[in-house]
Amino acid sequence: MATNRRIVLASRPQGAASTSNFRLETVDLPALADGQVLVHNHWLSLDPYMRGRMNDARSYAAPQPLNETMIGGTVGVVVESRSPKFVAGEAVVGMFGWQEHGISDGANLRKVDPALPLSAYLGAVGMPGVTAWYGLNRIIEPKAGETVVVSAASGAVGSVVGQLAKLAGCRAVGIAGGSDKCRYVVEELKFDACIDYKSQDVGKRLEELCPRGIDGYFENVGGDILNAVLPCMNAHGRIALCGLIAAYDKEPIALKNPGWLLTSRLKVQGFIVSEHMQDWPQALHELGAGVASGKIRFRESIVQGLENAPTAFLGLLKGQNFGKQLVKLI
Amino acid sequence: MATNRRIVLASRPQGAASTSNFRLETVDLPALADGQVLVHNHWLSLDPYMRGRMNDARSYAAPQPLNETMIGGTVGVVVESRSPKFVAGEAVVGMFGWQEHGISDGANLRKVDPALPLSAYLGAVGMPGVTAWYGLNRIIEPKAGETVVVSAASGAVGSVVGQLAKLAGCRAVGIAGGSDKCRYVVEELKFDACIDYKSQDVGKRLEELCPRGIDGYFENVGGDILNAVLPCMNAHGRIALCGLIAAYDKEPIALKNPGWLLTSRLKVQGFIVSEHMQDWPQALHELGAGVASGKIRFRESIVQGLENAPTAFLGLLKGQNFGKQLVKLI
Repeated sequence: MATNRRIVLASRPQGAASTSNFRLETVDLPALADGQVLVHNHWLSLDPYMRGRMNDARSYAAPQPLNETMIGGTVGVVVESRSPKFVAGEAVVGMFGWQEHGISDGANLRKVDPALPLSAYLGAVGMPGVTAWYGLNRIIEPKAGETVVVSAASGAVGSVVGQLAKLAGCRAVGIAGGSDKCRYVVEELKFDACIDYKSQDVGKRLEELCPRGIDGYFENVGGDILNAVLPCMNAHGRIALCGLIAAYDKEPIALKNPGWLLTSRLKVQGFIVSEHMQDWPQALHELGAGVASGKIRFRESIVQGLENAPTAFLGLLKGQNFGKQLVKLI
Repeated sequence: MATNRRIVLASRPQGAASTSNFRLETVDLPALADGQVLVHNHWLSLDPYMRGRMNDARSYAAPQPLNETMIGGTVGVVVESRSPKFVAGEAVVGMFGWQEHGISDGANLRKVDPALPLSAYLGAVGMPGVTAWYGLNRIIEPKAGETVVVSAASGAVGSVVGQLAKLAGCRAVGIAGGSDKCRYVVEELKFDACIDYKSQDVGKRLEELCPRGIDGYFENVGGDILNAVLPCMNAHGRIALCGLIAAYDKEPIALKNPGWLLTSRLKVQGFIVSEHMQDWPQALHELGAGVASGKIRFRESIVQGLENAPTAFLGLLKGQNFGKQLVKLI
């Protein structure tokens, strides 16, 4: 009987998450039942939302159960099929979690075109890309000539937000941590500008780099950055609230002056992309075409081996990744 | 030559506003030019938004100029007309400000039906009523069976919000200051419940009184009350941000945990009703019908005489009014 390696949630974090919250296990792979497929996962996606699931508190969704495989998006190849819908060799995206193999009845698997690198389906042409697409197009609703700002601009979501904003005719200004990331955002992703929050005064730089104010803000970070953005928002500005990673590992960070929401008549809207499945086909179509044509570029941070997923995930929460964080499982 | 009494902004507040920021003046009334009308104002409306205009800072609109008549809504009767559009005796709503008489070319005057008490056109069938109507119908968009909470529930805006929510088939829960106001909100306005923020734990009472959570919140107050409401909001709840009176006279009051906006996927939208003139005709029609039929009730706090407007206005900022605050000028 074949075996499978997986990582389970061993304990819930008290304060900051640590590697001790995870446990690597080797378990037997059961034989396939009729209608099932066995997938060999080539790539595992690491994403900030996973931190929320590790808590036992109300979040988007039910908490990650203890002692079960950590939730997560995967892409891989069917190695055995007892389903009429799949044949061995087909590439599929799934939610198999932090494990090397997965068994499914196919209900949550989506076949993907191997013409693109498989890892793209976990990034720009996957959940992070659709997240960017939805927040920008359905909440910010940018008009040509407007200014759109995005935090975590070199990351899997932020990089797509800015590139889509540019394609929509907007001025795109990023916020990222460190001069390397900022250089990449401007030189490779072609944003108009990028602010290094680690070495620059974000509020002052926003004033300089957004001379006509900010019309749309895509929030991945929260805390000090959100407080710096609010005074620069134009009347009737829109804020898509996608992530607040600055507070995931610690106490909430206050929004210092909610009065800006009123005086500038802002709209702030939180969202989770899995609740808007009706938009996925259009978004994936546009994102796939953008990647294929080279109009949407991305970068990946890759660690090798399932056993390194916990360390890579903790690094992601601290912004140590550069681009989409992936674990290569083969 | 006739004279006119008016109140001007004498100085800008340093911290809390005080009576010394205002000055009562008696000035000559010029003769009417061709096309002009002279209106004798019967009622002056006092509203929280005026506090923002007293500052020299960015707010909704340009600051109130020093040494000019304080801004404000009025309703009165035409006493002399050199305009073909008006005849003496007609009742008109205008923005003449804190003064007993006003001269206009008619552009900003709206004739009103004297079948309703004139003061109603400064309250439930005026700007406060339309504010309630817009925030509820255009931002909260209540569905029958949902729960709507409103702060400052006995006030000019809040009282209409709750009554409209009830007419829309919602559960309406108010928050007000003091047992008298709460009793009025439940017994006369027919809200389902009302919380006295001065003597009760707002968060605990919200949990008890909103057993199915809160779907829509109409915010007039901000600060501690907003912080207490957020954890009770249901997924996809909507918050109409109309006023933050708790912070008008002091430092901003932080929103302690913006994470609620994300985990509950809330929409928060600030608005000012004068930017949505396209909705005024429908709103005024529905509000007028509601008042005429007795389905929308209201209460007024009346002070007699222009000279008492500053004290009444400062009381309004502290919640000392009970219902719509008016100054009777005749």
